[in-house]
Amino acid sequence: MAVGHCDFPIMPEIPGIRLGTVCAGIKQKVRDDLLIFEAVEGSSCAAVFTQNAFCAAPVQVARKHLAATPRWLLVNSGNANAGTGKQGMRDAMTSCEQLARLTGGSTEQVLPFSTGVIGQPLPIDRIGAALPEAVRNLHPANWEKAARAIMTTDTFPKGFTKTLEVDGRTITFNGIAKGAGMIQPNMATMLSFIATDAKIGRGLLQHCLRRAAELSFNRITVDGDTSTNDALVVMASGLSSAPEIQAESENYQRFADALLDVCKSLAEAIVRDGEGATKLIRIVVEEAQSDEEAVRVAKTIAHSPLVKTAFFASDPNWGRILAAVGRAGVDNMELENIQIFLDDVCIVREGGRADDYTEEAGQQVMDREEIRVTVKLARGDARQEVLTCDFSYDYVKINAEYRT
Amino acid sequence: MAVGHCDFPIMPEIPGIRLGTVCAGIKQKVRDDLLIFEAVEGSSCAAVFTQNAFCAAPVQVARKHLAATPRWLLVNSGNANAGTGKQGMRDAMTSCEQLARLTGGSTEQVLPFSTGVIGQPLPIDRIGAALPEAVRNLHPANWEKAARAIMTTDTFPKGFTKTLEVDGRTITFNGIAKGAGMIQPNMATMLSFIATDAKIGRGLLQHCLRRAAELSFNRITVDGDTSTNDALVVMASGLSSAPEIQAESENYQRFADALLDVCKSLAEAIVRDGEGATKLIRIVVEEAQSDEEAVRVAKTIAHSPLVKTAFFASDPNWGRILAAVGRAGVDNMELENIQIFLDDVCIVREGGRADDYTEEAGQQVMDREEIRVTVKLARGDARQEVLTCDFSYDYVKINAEYRT
Repeated sequence: MAVGHCDFPIMPEIPGIRLGTVCAGIKQKVRDDLLIFEAVEGSSCAAVFTQNAFCAAPVQVARKHLAATPRWLLVNSGNANAGTGKQGMRDAMTSCEQLARLTGGSTEQVLPFSTGVIGQPLPIDRIGAALPEAVRNLHPANWEKAARAIMTTDTFPKGFTKTLEVDGRTITFNGIAKGAGMIQPNMATMLSFIATDAKIGRGLLQHCLRRAAELSFNRITVDGDTSTNDALVVMASGLSSAPEIQAESENYQRFADALLDVCKSLAEAIVRDGEGATKLIRIVVEEAQSDEEAVRVAKTIAHSPLVKTAFFASDPNWGRILAAVGRAGVDNMELENIQIFLDDVCIVREGGRADDYTEEAGQQVMDREEIRVTVKLARGDARQEVLTCDFSYDYVKINAEYRT
Repeated sequence: MAVGHCDFPIMPEIPGIRLGTVCAGIKQKVRDDLLIFEAVEGSSCAAVFTQNAFCAAPVQVARKHLAATPRWLLVNSGNANAGTGKQGMRDAMTSCEQLARLTGGSTEQVLPFSTGVIGQPLPIDRIGAALPEAVRNLHPANWEKAARAIMTTDTFPKGFTKTLEVDGRTITFNGIAKGAGMIQPNMATMLSFIATDAKIGRGLLQHCLRRAAELSFNRITVDGDTSTNDALVVMASGLSSAPEIQAESENYQRFADALLDVCKSLAEAIVRDGEGATKLIRIVVEEAQSDEEAVRVAKTIAHSPLVKTAFFASDPNWGRILAAVGRAGVDNMELENIQIFLDDVCIVREGGRADDYTEEAGQQVMDREEIRVTVKLARGDARQEVLTCDFSYDYVKINAEYRT
């Protein structure tokens, strides 16, 4: 189940980027579950990772290796290599060594990523046995295969492509992502890998990526659970004929906005594929005193199981939205000034149901598959959006049966 | 559905306290939905209320009237009179006036309480029409009827009774409560009313109640949603022959502990009746740096939909518990030092699955109906408990169909 139209786009090749996948049989034997992502020598790499205090072994290794000059990402699905203690750290390092031997790079140039069940030892032998074939499969056209290889409970592969004209030359971005549950990214996301042929220094790229993550993946939530394995990586091969992106230039701003656009599209795809989701809900908080306050109110609504089940039932039960706003922990909020809208229908004004509101008008909006909830706080000028989905029987089903 | 054995206890009469119920037809026509709770002249009354910024009209009125010398509580189920604007305030006041006229008391001596759907106008005419019969029904034996009259999605009436010997004389406590969803009380709970025949000044009683609420109702959560209508009230008639409870005495400490015991039992009953609950989960966080830190970690676990669905499935998926601890926002937490137990089975030690852990041992605990999760942080001496329940299909069903 997923909300809306989710076809995988036709993605062009990115000069300097190759992808190779293989079925290593990590959790199942049917589909590819191992991905190698290779960037040409001289590429820039930037990444942000989960802020969960207990980050998985591969995240710890990747964070360390980011200081070198990474050229390879090694990604497996089916096993998170999290909560695996010292053995998990050894396994993550071993997988980097294995790939480095095959490619002629150094171990430090490999960033490892894992996603799947927490607490099971990584089947490092099976990964080692499958790596040579994955290396042989490296090809610039393998974007959809790559997006499929990193899926877990995802119901569709997620990709987005975009071009940007810079001084008459074209820069291309391709991005893939996975994630459907344990989604409330904090400074990063579930796994997402983006490539571009832009020329840009790593410091600038990192700066750009942090901002993009904050305004995209950090603004979505499926169930409020922040994963131990979230990671977002961008590799810039520098092979485009466009001039290098320089700090504080107009081109930098345009590049940053394009990267944000890629991140937002991938983040939205994750919510559309939220576990059990039947509706995409865009929560817009306006007239807040600060961005932080706006995000806080929006996330409180987005995490409320009562709000989420009401959306599942297509029930315009605005009292639950109002109650969530009220418990968001914002000081001195005045109920009398709050307004709440479902799409363009005003449902709450002056502390109660809007005079001109009708259940029919509310019901008409709730029957839609994509709904915008707007909350106006009448306290300031800040505005933020959070994307979430509803809470259905299938969320319970998927997560009650995940390991069986 | 409810966890464990939930028979209503045989509750003695409390001298000076009478209860009267009636069916006012507020939401349905079948069962009593209006309760009057009367305390004899000279009683002490203390109360704590929701901290939701948008508290319901009756809560606002009750908070104001608490400064007078309250003798009557007027409670309706089926309608929360929340999000009802100015009309809601007028209706709450009107209901107090109606009861005052019938009893000869003053309007300020009536505290109103409402629970049920948010955002519908209170059917004040039906309440007015039903009040005379409720007054005629006032009787000291009506505790179970009272507990039933305040139910909404509750599946059983909740009561607890307890006696305390003070200088050879007996003090009796009776308490009732309601609540099954929108449960994460903050400084108070859903509706709970406690009576005692103890002699105790109102200031001291209020002090006692605040502590009891903090350690009982404020330590439970069903779905993380804090209601707009939470209220906890205690009335002390002073008709026991036991001596008056004095501040800073040994008897005060014993009285406070007894009141806490009543609150804890009622709070636990609410979790047992949590919407869709099939399991009672006691989350104990030990070795924290502060009580606040312990509660924060415990509540993060208790609110995780992934943890809750794993309990529903009886799946010892401890990785989800570990991930929740990791995202609780505690600084400088060391994964290597954490231990996690399911009842007496150690599942996590030194950053990973405990060496002696077996899935069979974990499964055996998970198959139980009541489970204790203990998390040892190895950071200090603070210890706190939070009670919660699992997350089942029926939670979604109940809340998707609530208004239909």
